Amino acid sequence: MTDELAISSITPDFSTAVPDGDDRERRICNTCGFVDYVNPKIVAGSVVTDKDGKVLLCRRAIEPRKGFWTLPAGFMEENETVEQAAQREAKEEACADIRIQQMLAVYSVPRISQVQIMFRARLESSIDSGPESLEVGMFDWKDIPWSELAFPTVIWALTHYAATRHLQAFPPFTNPPGTEKITR
Amino acid sequence: MTDELAISSITPDFSTAVPDGDDRERRICNTCGFVDYVNPKIVAGSVVTDKDGKVLLCRRAIEPRKGFWTLPAGFMEENETVEQAAQREAKEEACADIRIQQMLAVYSVPRISQVQIMFRARLESSIDSGPESLEVGMFDWKDIPWSELAFPTVIWALTHYAATRHLQAFPPFTNPPGTEKITR
Ligand SMILES: [Zn+2]
Ligand SMILES: [Zn+2]
Repeated sequence: MTDELAISSITPDFSTAVPDGDDRERRICNTCGFVDYVNPKIVAGSVVTDKDGKVLLCRRAIEPRKGFWTLPAGFMEENETVEQAAQREAKEEACADIRIQQMLAVYSVPRISQVQIMFRARLESSIDSGPESLEVGMFDWKDIPWSELAFPTVIWALTHYAATRHLQAFPPFTNPPGTEKITR
Repeated sequence: MTDELAISSITPDFSTAVPDGDDRERRICNTCGFVDYVNPKIVAGSVVTDKDGKVLLCRRAIEPRKGFWTLPAGFMEENETVEQAAQREAKEEACADIRIQQMLAVYSVPRISQVQIMFRARLESSIDSGPESLEVGMFDWKDIPWSELAFPTVIWALTHYAATRHLQAFPPFTNPPGTEKITR
């Protein structure tokens, strides 16, 4: 607790400059010289279905978009594969064991420097709310709460899932046309 | 020049702790409090072919694996799509304009926290060595210098390209079995 207070009471002081050997400006700390190479972040997630074709959705317990429904997905961590990241997120958010079936889509959200890698997966356990979910549920297609989905990419992934649900193998989708400028 | 010297003469001093609201240890600067969230990095690249089926390779002018042959590929930057990153890298390393055709593979290299997203693409310009390439060339399949390729993922991507070169659409490949522990 003392450590946490100490950490949050110090504010890093950055300016921008081109580091030696680099070709573009980076944030560099004026206090300690740390170069903050900001890379795009990877979100890994899944459209998880059960044997009846119901889809797993999680109602977010955290911002952004608290209270809205989303697919189990989250930031990839170090030292894991994309598939392991998607499985970990399903476990953390819905206490779900899933079997990855195929890559469904790779969406880029350049305004926020995110790449979202979405899989089609099969539920292999019961589900329950993890700490980041208010509730979780398996939804019949007709019951999906379209107006209460958290992010555009959730709508895209569900739509792309529906377009290929009877296919064994297909190329992954990318962004729908005209979506270069979304910010979440 | 003065700035570059100033930057490299300061050494950040990090220790590890769990930041408030987080669930795992991060590197935190003892001098300024900056939390270094290290995320996996995305490499975007392409197997680029011309109308005769020749493959574009670049001989590396920089470490690691200087002098070895590679596909045009590199770290994704902020505020671009994966496809734009692959096109930018082809331009930077081989002065090549390319048209992205399909996603070929998504490889995870967890030991070094990398995700490599590789496309199949068509060459639409001449080629020339960029600053990171000693030379570039279009190779007939029989002339590919297999023993002088820079990284395992280059071998995988070329092999996966060959397996699907006559297909219009196919699911992207992931890692070959047993490759979880490679370190480059
Ligand atoms: Zn600092
Ligand atoms: Zn610092």
